[in-house]
Amino acid sequence: MQPADATPDAARAAWRAKVITLFPDIFPGPLGISLTGDALRQGLWALETFDLRTFGIGRHRNVDDTPAGGGAGMVLRADVVAAAVDTAQHQARNDGGELPVIVFTPRGAPLTQSVVRELAAGPGAILLAGRFEGVDERVIEARQMREISIGDYILAGGDLPAMVLIEAVLRLLPGVLGSAHSLSEESFETGLLEYPQYTRPREWEGRQIPDVLLNGNHAHIEAWRRAEAEAATRTRRPDLWQASAKKQP
Amino acid sequence: MQPADATPDAARAAWRAKVITLFPDIFPGPLGISLTGDALRQGLWALETFDLRTFGIGRHRNVDDTPAGGGAGMVLRADVVAAAVDTAQHQARNDGGELPVIVFTPRGAPLTQSVVRELAAGPGAILLAGRFEGVDERVIEARQMREISIGDYILAGGDLPAMVLIEAVLRLLPGVLGSAHSLSEESFETGLLEYPQYTRPREWEGRQIPDVLLNGNHAHIEAWRRAEAEAATRTRRPDLWQASAKKQP
Repeated sequence: MQPADATPDAARAAWRAKVITLFPDIFPGPLGISLTGDALRQGLWALETFDLRTFGIGRHRNVDDTPAGGGAGMVLRADVVAAAVDTAQHQARNDGGELPVIVFTPRGAPLTQSVVRELAAGPGAILLAGRFEGVDERVIEARQMREISIGDYILAGGDLPAMVLIEAVLRLLPGVLGSAHSLSEESFETGLLEYPQYTRPREWEGRQIPDVLLNGNHAHIEAWRRAEAEAATRTRRPDLWQASAKKQP
Repeated sequence: MQPADATPDAARAAWRAKVITLFPDIFPGPLGISLTGDALRQGLWALETFDLRTFGIGRHRNVDDTPAGGGAGMVLRADVVAAAVDTAQHQARNDGGELPVIVFTPRGAPLTQSVVRELAAGPGAILLAGRFEGVDERVIEARQMREISIGDYILAGGDLPAMVLIEAVLRLLPGVLGSAHSLSEESFETGLLEYPQYTRPREWEGRQIPDVLLNGNHAHIEAWRRAEAEAATRTRRPDLWQASAKKQP
């Protein structure tokens, strides 16, 4: 694989998303609008879909079969998935170098902002959006896929997770959000949740914007926001609060 | 709010999703395909979008303004959001009763399968898909919104999270997945990750399906799967493993 620093930043190539899916028509979908859509049209990232069905077996292009050992649902076949992944990887080698292969499964490592940052610093990813009960374990191992879960809930397939991962990555790419936007104070970047936000009007339904935000004293504003962020993290997410306390002894 | 058990199961009304968004055109999008799309056409759930822009202020239909106290990005105005939420809630009262209001924010409670189950047992939800830096805190409080986060990463907006929540809920609704599917053995339903899955062919690239899955001894298969599920949870998700150990003393 080409090292991430092989390309000078000025000539940075587009971040490449290659999605293997049974539903290629739903891409880019929600990624085709707003800032991520603009970035796609500007060539800051590139999207290619691979229709898993075209790698299916026989006249019916079967992609799945019943689970060995019994049980509900269907499992995506190793040979079919491997053919799709190998095709995507072949294309990747031709258009800029090998890409890591990611599969979305509830068994995966939780997606976090640090995983997102790591992927955004790389050249892109091949994203396998499974459906059905799962993917044959052997192809996950043989193709050294990285298993990722976007959260502790069950979805109908990997298509929405692929979109979620891509959107999270895109907003970290230079040029996507615009220079005015600061990423540094956001939730999870500081290890704390964000402070609450307010905007005009000053009074609404009898509720006021907190005075401190209106008096123009930046030190006071910063202290208030820090305290609010800490309080929110402590009460809403004791898990993050503990992790953040460990980092700042 | 109408109690969840007011409707007998046979005459169960469609689960109602009312999404407030700046991008109504991207719905149903990924939810319009496969089983969730079939369920939409069968009337098992109903989708309505509310274009936040139409509630905007002035000739330019402004929905946002700069953060009080300074900082990057823009904040959705309380008055604009309230007008949209109140309209959606008015509609909800007319078509079956009030709905809980959910806003997607990194400050929210993590979405888990138990939250999904709770929402699936209810009548539906009004889902506010924010964009920009956030939503004025006062309208979150005044409309008693439930703040939910789909994971510890930052997205460009709440549209994908709304789709994720809806898809997770839909697959729990009676009739959506079909009767063959068992929900009970899935990840997070048992408190453990799932065991690995295999299917034909029996040998692939020199890799075999584990023998135990092929010998037809159901007690052995069940014991193997349980051990695999436990081992995966222990090594991949010590946090879930600890939580699961506490539940089963």
